[in-house]
Amino acid sequence: MSERDPKVSVFGQLRAETAEWKAFTHHAFVQQLGDGTLPKEAFLHYLMQDYVFLIHFSRAWALGIVKAETLEEMEVCTKMVSALIEEEMQLHVQTCAKAGIDPATLVQVCESPENLAYTRYVLEAGFSGDFLDLVFALAPCVMGYGEIGARLAEEATSPVYDTWIETYAGSDYQGVCGLVGTLLDKAVVGRIGAGYAGGPRWKSLSRRFAKATQLEVGFWDMGLRGRNS
Amino acid sequence: MSERDPKVSVFGQLRAETAEWKAFTHHAFVQQLGDGTLPKEAFLHYLMQDYVFLIHFSRAWALGIVKAETLEEMEVCTKMVSALIEEEMQLHVQTCAKAGIDPATLVQVCESPENLAYTRYVLEAGFSGDFLDLVFALAPCVMGYGEIGARLAEEATSPVYDTWIETYAGSDYQGVCGLVGTLLDKAVVGRIGAGYAGGPRWKSLSRRFAKATQLEVGFWDMGLRGRNS
Amino acid sequence: MSERDPKVSVFGQLRAETAEWKAFTHHAFVQQLGDGTLPKEAFLHYLMQDYVFLIHFSRAWALGIVKAETLEEMEVCTKMVSALIEEEMQLHVQTCAKAGIDPATLVQVCESPENLAYTRYVLEAGFSGDFLDLVFALAPCVMGYGEIGARLAEEATSPVYDTWIETYAGSDYQGVCGLVGTLLDKAVVGRIGAGYAGGPRWKSLSRRFAKATQLEVGFWDMGLRGRNS
Amino acid sequence: MSERDPKVSVFGQLRAETAEWKAFTHHAFVQQLGDGTLPKEAFLHYLMQDYVFLIHFSRAWALGIVKAETLEEMEVCTKMVSALIEEEMQLHVQTCAKAGIDPATLVQVCESPENLAYTRYVLEAGFSGDFLDLVFALAPCVMGYGEIGARLAEEATSPVYDTWIETYAGSDYQGVCGLVGTLLDKAVVGRIGAGYAGGPRWKSLSRRFAKATQLEVGFWDMGLRGRNS
Repeated sequence: MSERDPKVSVFGQLRAETAEWKAFTHHAFVQQLGDGTLPKEAFLHYLMQDYVFLIHFSRAWALGIVKAETLEEMEVCTKMVSALIEEEMQLHVQTCAKAGIDPATLVQVCESPENLAYTRYVLEAGFSGDFLDLVFALAPCVMGYGEIGARLAEEATSPVYDTWIETYAGSDYQGVCGLVGTLLDKAVVGRIGAGYAGGPRWKSLSRRFAKATQLEVGFWDMGLRGRNS
Repeated sequence: MSERDPKVSVFGQLRAETAEWKAFTHHAFVQQLGDGTLPKEAFLHYLMQDYVFLIHFSRAWALGIVKAETLEEMEVCTKMVSALIEEEMQLHVQTCAKAGIDPATLVQVCESPENLAYTRYVLEAGFSGDFLDLVFALAPCVMGYGEIGARLAEEATSPVYDTWIETYAGSDYQGVCGLVGTLLDKAVVGRIGAGYAGGPRWKSLSRRFAKATQLEVGFWDMGLRGRNS
Repeated sequence: MSERDPKVSVFGQLRAETAEWKAFTHHAFVQQLGDGTLPKEAFLHYLMQDYVFLIHFSRAWALGIVKAETLEEMEVCTKMVSALIEEEMQLHVQTCAKAGIDPATLVQVCESPENLAYTRYVLEAGFSGDFLDLVFALAPCVMGYGEIGARLAEEATSPVYDTWIETYAGSDYQGVCGLVGTLLDKAVVGRIGAGYAGGPRWKSLSRRFAKATQLEVGFWDMGLRGRNS
Repeated sequence: MSERDPKVSVFGQLRAETAEWKAFTHHAFVQQLGDGTLPKEAFLHYLMQDYVFLIHFSRAWALGIVKAETLEEMEVCTKMVSALIEEEMQLHVQTCAKAGIDPATLVQVCESPENLAYTRYVLEAGFSGDFLDLVFALAPCVMGYGEIGARLAEEATSPVYDTWIETYAGSDYQGVCGLVGTLLDKAVVGRIGAGYAGGPRWKSLSRRFAKATQLEVGFWDMGLRGRNS
């Protein structure tokens, strides 16, 4: 797709261009969340890894504030950092607490290689590139979880992982996805222009998005394995 | 002072070591805020420059989130970013609006050389160094304004710049200073250890603090001049 | 100039767009280098400041290696770092030594505010932006000195500053300018495409170039003043 | 080991403290290089991945120039960048060419997850931390290859991988290890002081070294597997 349809959002176009998108959003880990067959230990292992992930993901959104070029971009990134630190991470703390894992254990968790690879890739993309490089590496996780949550809320056949599904299907999180979608659209048009999809910059940004999507697949693989290696 | 008194805070020790501290906190600009003789145009020029300054200062505190090594450090830096963007900058917008300067004018302000020098110094210190390099470059502004506000609240002989003085003398801002003071203490002890004042790292960090203090003096000079050059 | 002439280089277009270019290349400091009326102390003050400048300028070109996206870009930036550290800085050491200033004095030089402002602006542009943000902030110095050297080699009416003029008029330095000119052209076309001059990215990059040019003017002002403030 | 023996180098102490060191230096991949049993395809796969690795490793050493605080540190890091780009990468190009893999193929190589994880970890450590964080993450690769090369030069029982072994056993590469060892010693003492091993900074730096060593083990695992996943 080299010509851009003006009705299509930046995310819509990226999603259509990224071969790995379905492998991420329909991964066996996701499907087993929906039908309730995911082993509890695998889920807890994933949750503890995700807690460490969210620390670095918050740092990456904070880097977005540093790299922003408008007040609006700064404000959206600040909201993301607050939501991650004050809400999403607390949810993990609570879910883990119910399963008998205390916060002290959480911060001591040994990062899996897939976890480390993903977060350092995103942070390095942000440090080495500009705001667009960073938000394109951040986008698959935010938008993909929104899509997965919304789909599972419709299709799930078991209530086992309801809390998780409702978190990402809920209006709060869906609102975040809307915010980030708009951020992507404005940031791209404001820097590359309305005809963004034709040029070399789009290609390199699209590769960033695809690479982060692949790293999401690796993260689910690690979750399904239920241990670090 | 090579031996550290355990009752003295990191900021207390830096303050005592920094020759330029009084030139910053008792600058003619400050004294004229207190006795009401500061020309209105000089104050407005300063306020508009300070608005641009706060954008970059918020970015620098956001870099603190990226460079933090504990959740507590991340949380303090996040609070600073929110306070700067959601409160301090809004105050400038309102004060300027009362003087007939609209927000659109504010973001278009041409940065003075002293302004640019200061903010880029702080950001570059943070990018090139670690969390300590960054917070030592950030500290003089935060702590100095708290000290100036508290002193002027006692000593001011004119009500002309009351709103400004109350902002920095008020309990909200004084609470921020307490938070940042504790952040400095914990960050230094957690990285260098309790005997921090003896080693080479302290010397280089102390130079960072002194350089940022000098750049504060330059900022007041610019304010007093009432124009960019 | 919003339409690009394909025969015009990126630098040629930037030069034509930048109002401050002549203020930089025809500054009184430059003219006095040509007619030999520049006071010796002013020249030495400038040279010592320039030594400190070159340390940070080398660091900024090294950041170019980090931010490069092709092997060729990495190689050009590596050449720049080597040339600066191994050649240009050595020349300053030798010229200062002849004037009785030893290397130990050079590294102890107290950076002038104009010097600090310029180098931190360039480094921060590089850290916060991408490769293009960095090289557009680096370009005015490299290309401007080449232009000044070549012009003074033709127009100088006094031999007093011959060594300085020959350094920048010489084939080695002129070759460096050719290399950097080509780097700019390829980096811009490779990222934005051949029609680069039309879009919003060009505007922000052009502002980077203009700001660095202004900071060059400030640096000459400092040189002419012959002291830090 | 909390007390430092002044005769022991920084690297010597790190090596002694790092449980994973032997898993890295005596990995099956290494042993099979020595006895010639490593499958040719595994070696070529490793070599192509290592080519991509060296690009990012060069970028990380260039970041060292940016983060350096002395001219000597800048010079050592510049030498490392030049050696990597002009020598070590050329060697890979030649070895691959002999095996029928051309340079165009090399730059197109799809990075394995282990490769990506390692290089992004090192670069992110450098961006988020200071010079020490960076060089401690860079050290295991440089010093470990020197140790492996020297040992295999003595113990190898087959000439199949002679060229590789001689590269790292040779006086050029061993000289590089000496240079980096001295860099570590001076950088640590110059920043933390002679009693560096007692404090919290050492602990966090030591963890950096251990993590990079683990990532080296992952890199050999990938090499032995002979394919990306």
